[in-house]
Amino acid sequence: MDVERLARQLDFVREADKIKQIFRQTNIGDNTRPENDSEHSWHLALMAMFLSEYANEEVDLSRVIQMVLIHDLVEIDAGDTYAYDPEANKSKREREVKAAERIFHILPDDQAKWLRDLWEEFEAGDTMDAKFAIAMDVLHPILMNDMGEGKAWLDHNVREEQVRARVERVRPGSETLYQVCSELITKNREKGYLI
Amino acid sequence: MDVERLARQLDFVREADKIKQIFRQTNIGDNTRPENDSEHSWHLALMAMFLSEYANEEVDLSRVIQMVLIHDLVEIDAGDTYAYDPEANKSKREREVKAAERIFHILPDDQAKWLRDLWEEFEAGDTMDAKFAIAMDVLHPILMNDMGEGKAWLDHNVREEQVRARVERVRPGSETLYQVCSELITKNREKGYLI
Repeated sequence: MDVERLARQLDFVREADKIKQIFRQTNIGDNTRPENDSEHSWHLALMAMFLSEYANEEVDLSRVIQMVLIHDLVEIDAGDTYAYDPEANKSKREREVKAAERIFHILPDDQAKWLRDLWEEFEAGDTMDAKFAIAMDVLHPILMNDMGEGKAWLDHNVREEQVRARVERVRPGSETLYQVCSELITKNREKGYLI
Repeated sequence: MDVERLARQLDFVREADKIKQIFRQTNIGDNTRPENDSEHSWHLALMAMFLSEYANEEVDLSRVIQMVLIHDLVEIDAGDTYAYDPEANKSKREREVKAAERIFHILPDDQAKWLRDLWEEFEAGDTMDAKFAIAMDVLHPILMNDMGEGKAWLDHNVREEQVRARVERVRPGSETLYQVCSELITKNREKGYLI
């Protein structure tokens, strides 16, 4: 047994714990508090398990799940970048790459490379697996805002056209789930939960 | 498109959000608050991704991950049953089966059956995938307590022999990770973090 290898893997597991303290701009369903990245990532993985039949083309569910589980690890260093904050989004890539270089390399080199490749695939969004993983990532806060009567949207002065632009990213992964988003946006605007 | 089917799947995704409010007896790493079930489940899935090479026999990583992601859903109704509470553990199975019957059946029947089978496989612990999933579930709070200098153990008056008995459940999944648990227990007892 390679003691050094195992030690690095366990150190990575310990480091990953910090994601539980990275809070998003979206609340949990009952609006009692913001959701954190580990809760969000768990929810995306669960969604992928039960919604993969709606992918535009067949996906490798295992890869999609692993992608959503790890997609926010870089936020341990880079922080959560709100989708509707154009300034913060300018520096997002640079901050996240730096984070990936530190955090992923806690792992043994072969696993660090595997993880980096998986994360870059998600970020690029070119493969069907990544497109569907992104669809989960964008659909999720729409569902959460709908559950929470748009509180997180209203608190951040998010406008309908911004959310409509955002959900275009669901379309390459799933036309069906894009329609779900579109209907939820209309419903929430009509109810006054989205300006 | 089956509108009724999709509606049930989305209702299940919404219901699953409640797991974020089911708190465990274990804290997050910095001891600032208890960990909840979605955070715990996410962490297990991540551990499985990077530790599956230590399974005693080859596992299907995708199945292990899916098992740990769903293993605590029943606690939405049944609540968290502390591993070191013998009274609560007597009624655990009955409470959890009742919960599974309600929660899983929010899904379309085929997916409810798939989920029930996966959960029962985890509960029975007979397959190699289930044994390794259980190893993750038992190793995780040992790692968390070790990070938190045993605070959750000390707060609940948990004794070394109880933890040693508990980690026997890691052994069928991974002898190597059982050794890790055993060493962590010894270290924490020596430091006074475990009585």
